[in-house]
Amino acid sequence: MRGSRSEQTAQSAADAGARTTIGFVGLGRMGSAMAASLVAAGWRVVAYVRRPERLPELSAVGINPVSTMDDIADCSIVISMLPDDAAVADVVSGLTRRLARGAIHLSMSTISPQCSTDMAAVHAHYGQAYVAAPVFGNPDAAKARELFVVAAGASDHVARCRPLLDVLGQKVFVIGADPAAANLVKLAGNVMSAAAMETMGEILALARKRGLDPELLMTILTATMFGSRVHRIYGSKIASRHYTAGGLVLPLALKDVRLALAEADAAAVPMPSISVVRDRLLTGIAMGHADLDWSALGLVAAEEAGLAENATKEE
Amino acid sequence: MRGSRSEQTAQSAADAGARTTIGFVGLGRMGSAMAASLVAAGWRVVAYVRRPERLPELSAVGINPVSTMDDIADCSIVISMLPDDAAVADVVSGLTRRLARGAIHLSMSTISPQCSTDMAAVHAHYGQAYVAAPVFGNPDAAKARELFVVAAGASDHVARCRPLLDVLGQKVFVIGADPAAANLVKLAGNVMSAAAMETMGEILALARKRGLDPELLMTILTATMFGSRVHRIYGSKIASRHYTAGGLVLPLALKDVRLALAEADAAAVPMPSISVVRDRLLTGIAMGHADLDWSALGLVAAEEAGLAENATKEE
Amino acid sequence: MRGSRSEQTAQSAADAGARTTIGFVGLGRMGSAMAASLVAAGWRVVAYVRRPERLPELSAVGINPVSTMDDIADCSIVISMLPDDAAVADVVSGLTRRLARGAIHLSMSTISPQCSTDMAAVHAHYGQAYVAAPVFGNPDAAKARELFVVAAGASDHVARCRPLLDVLGQKVFVIGADPAAANLVKLAGNVMSAAAMETMGEILALARKRGLDPELLMTILTATMFGSRVHRIYGSKIASRHYTAGGLVLPLALKDVRLALAEADAAAVPMPSISVVRDRLLTGIAMGHADLDWSALGLVAAEEAGLAENATKEE
Amino acid sequence: MRGSRSEQTAQSAADAGARTTIGFVGLGRMGSAMAASLVAAGWRVVAYVRRPERLPELSAVGINPVSTMDDIADCSIVISMLPDDAAVADVVSGLTRRLARGAIHLSMSTISPQCSTDMAAVHAHYGQAYVAAPVFGNPDAAKARELFVVAAGASDHVARCRPLLDVLGQKVFVIGADPAAANLVKLAGNVMSAAAMETMGEILALARKRGLDPELLMTILTATMFGSRVHRIYGSKIASRHYTAGGLVLPLALKDVRLALAEADAAAVPMPSISVVRDRLLTGIAMGHADLDWSALGLVAAEEAGLAENATKEE
Repeated sequence: MRGSRSEQTAQSAADAGARTTIGFVGLGRMGSAMAASLVAAGWRVVAYVRRPERLPELSAVGINPVSTMDDIADCSIVISMLPDDAAVADVVSGLTRRLARGAIHLSMSTISPQCSTDMAAVHAHYGQAYVAAPVFGNPDAAKARELFVVAAGASDHVARCRPLLDVLGQKVFVIGADPAAANLVKLAGNVMSAAAMETMGEILALARKRGLDPELLMTILTATMFGSRVHRIYGSKIASRHYTAGGLVLPLALKDVRLALAEADAAAVPMPSISVVRDRLLTGIAMGHADLDWSALGLVAAEEAGLAENATKEE
Repeated sequence: MRGSRSEQTAQSAADAGARTTIGFVGLGRMGSAMAASLVAAGWRVVAYVRRPERLPELSAVGINPVSTMDDIADCSIVISMLPDDAAVADVVSGLTRRLARGAIHLSMSTISPQCSTDMAAVHAHYGQAYVAAPVFGNPDAAKARELFVVAAGASDHVARCRPLLDVLGQKVFVIGADPAAANLVKLAGNVMSAAAMETMGEILALARKRGLDPELLMTILTATMFGSRVHRIYGSKIASRHYTAGGLVLPLALKDVRLALAEADAAAVPMPSISVVRDRLLTGIAMGHADLDWSALGLVAAEEAGLAENATKEE
Repeated sequence: MRGSRSEQTAQSAADAGARTTIGFVGLGRMGSAMAASLVAAGWRVVAYVRRPERLPELSAVGINPVSTMDDIADCSIVISMLPDDAAVADVVSGLTRRLARGAIHLSMSTISPQCSTDMAAVHAHYGQAYVAAPVFGNPDAAKARELFVVAAGASDHVARCRPLLDVLGQKVFVIGADPAAANLVKLAGNVMSAAAMETMGEILALARKRGLDPELLMTILTATMFGSRVHRIYGSKIASRHYTAGGLVLPLALKDVRLALAEADAAAVPMPSISVVRDRLLTGIAMGHADLDWSALGLVAAEEAGLAENATKEE
Repeated sequence: MRGSRSEQTAQSAADAGARTTIGFVGLGRMGSAMAASLVAAGWRVVAYVRRPERLPELSAVGINPVSTMDDIADCSIVISMLPDDAAVADVVSGLTRRLARGAIHLSMSTISPQCSTDMAAVHAHYGQAYVAAPVFGNPDAAKARELFVVAAGASDHVARCRPLLDVLGQKVFVIGADPAAANLVKLAGNVMSAAAMETMGEILALARKRGLDPELLMTILTATMFGSRVHRIYGSKIASRHYTAGGLVLPLALKDVRLALAEADAAAVPMPSISVVRDRLLTGIAMGHADLDWSALGLVAAEEAGLAENATKEE
């Protein structure tokens, strides 16, 4: 009789864990949740943490925090989950000098394809491997191990990371040998999400000004043509004007839009609907909403339609 | 023991049909499929048809074609399924003089909210009722009785139409007394679909120019954040460059965009992402693609990115 | 020895005036200034005025106000200066029944090319002539007889109007037989002006946020590459944040943008930079600036960049 | 009795030249023309030239070409005229180690404000001065000494450069101590020019499709509201479809747009009309027009309106 998925995964993780301690760099909200999931699945995780005030919280869920990168030098796989290209480049310069030949840097951040290509080259120079595996999903999804993972790298390196990825994601897409491709998929998904929020924002502002209940409209749209996760999650936030602080805040969404537009620039691909998103994110930041989740694109659309939204913002 | 949904529906339709013959105006691809569905469910349908060459085809599926509007004057419910505001206004001027007081015009076309408001007023002047019930779905969905229907009008009038709507749609949303609201929902859905196609077109053009398989990308996106009907149906067409003639051709999509932007103009709501769609539809028409389904927004995006698509167009 | 331009013009106008009394419909700010200029140049002007409170003001400058259109029925030339297509169509239906065969309707309003085509056809049906002659310039320019006039119509009809046009404009461009062409030139100029204001607004907002004096920037730009009237007049308003009520207010500018975009739609010409202007005008109206001159496009650009402008608005 | 402007300038230049030999880096089309103007005005110019095949041409006009940067180390003023930020940074790293304390780097390239700020800091670290003085005008204007110069830097440093700038430009604007401000003015001017071309392109495409002679339209517009240099020069190119290779080719125009949008991003200023220009430049490059002058924005507008332009492109 077969055990449940989680029991099986935990067992195989534990088997693998017997052979491997996982290094982790980047213990923000996403990283912490992911590292905790690995621990829960039976892995030993050693996390490089710069801020000592984080130690108790991380230790409490079974993560082993260390204060110098030297302490993760023995790991054969090091996961990074960092905010941007610069942070990844900084960590890579610390890792390359310490990791053994043959070690794998499993890079799960949302960064530019070019950065992934460059980092892979740097690691290769040191005889180390680089696997890109960005994820779709927020910290709640990370806790629930319901992320979607898009992985790319040399097939044997991806295979070595696979048990970890299977723990973290509800589904893992392995898309080939070029790490940059995985990062491009992630950027594509993020800007497509942002564009969907922009359009919903515009349409819900129109609905409100024409006396049509925005929540009713969103209910109909998601029940018919727009049943996707993005439309259900963010459409309902915009329709109910439930703009929360935190999450993928506007400047982080802008970062991804900027990276996608830089790809488009390099490839000579006009992306007018993404340019609109860019300008609306800038407006949102200029109007003082930099601390809000990217669903605040709906707030910007409402404000530009002359709908005062002050009362509805939730901190 | 309860019968199946279709048996029950057919029975209640037959009951109602004993009392009512349904008039039908607008026997295009959508209208014909809908009228045929009503016949199949047990209703008697009398259709006003201008072009005699259509008669055999309509008779073959049990529809009763008539060549003058006088022959539908006795119907207590007349359905219209017409291409635009002007056609609806023209038909209404023919109906008002002929229909009895208390008769219902069940208007299922995609028209402007303003047109619905005006037509309701004209019918009211003659003591007749007007129910707006536009649908989401193409002729195939109409044949399969899988449309989504959004209905609005006085509640007793909607109730009288309900058995018909239940036959035509897999789901009926009744959203209140104002017919214009139903038309606004339809426009909102259509421009949101068009905007989604525009964004997918841009992103898939970028993917192709960066060497990322567009079908793989679309598979990942629909399996994760973008599982909605619109993304699955149209995303796969764009990714596979399967642009077909017919369907909601670019000029018809532009018609809906134009109506939505006119609403936005009247309500003072800027809709920049819809403005982008408008301009891209115009480009598509200018480039000679007026005969293609609106998924050809993806073709326009590809062409403007310098990707020659000539070989992939299917007639 | 040659007299001055105004003496000469006045003389020839007086000569012509001996033969002709000019009818005038549309005594708004522009119309009044133009009619007064004609009077000053020696013409007799009979003006159809609906609002009796305007009579003293018009009589004071020598215009003969009348309260029924019958009183201008004898004029062989009637000038109209009206706000939009609907007003022109309304006046035309009043004129056709009253004017003699061979009379000329000299239509100087900013209206759609299509409206001009239609009105010309209606007048032709009654054996009357139609000349389109929209103008560039505001009421101050009209008072100073410094308008630019773009005239189109049958050459003999234009020739008959020419003495009047020479009085009103510092320069008259006669561009052919198709009245619609003159209206298209006017629309082209207006949307190009609006687009220039939009761009200046964006750039001056950037300058301010980067600590660069916007008036200095505008001085340099107008002294080098951008010495045109539009940039000098409106750039200086935007740079100094001198947004005044009146003038071509945002809804009137939007009217012209709407007409130009309708032309673009009919001709299948994407005009993305004009779409931007449209959306920004809607934002301005939604934000409560409908009473301001169209240079308030600069105010919208500043506000969307997070620059509070409240103190600088002048009523 | 006063001599002519050029005689006087040549004399003062010669006086100054007695004290100073001018170094020059960046002998492209603009740089060569500028260096030749300085020579013609009596200065001694030593130019660092990497490509030996340029030597005869430069020597012929009296420029002294040298093949190592060491040979310009003695100059108290070195002018650079380079294509982009990277090239300037590269040259600065070569200059700082060689120039004497107190020497001035007169940086005339179109670069980002940030780059200017950074380069000024690097030079300051070595006790050297940095003056930014970008110019408006093409190589023909440079030859005719009709450039417009916008200069910024410490006032005594600008004063030392002033005789050179007066030779090169028909007018010199000194705008303060912050070099970045001069570069921002230049970017502002360039993107405003590009936006004007975009709008003219759209409007002239509309004119052509509506049967209105584009050259006539442009004549009227430049004679009335749009008499500026940008509209006269580029409007006439677009109206006559005279798209030439060379000049500020699309990728160089895109470079400036990219820099301006990066400034806008950093300052949180949405610039939708510039985003349109960006997308249209990308389309132009994608469609194979990367070798054409930026007036080819008009070609892109025409092509997207379905107007075939192949025959009109001039190499």
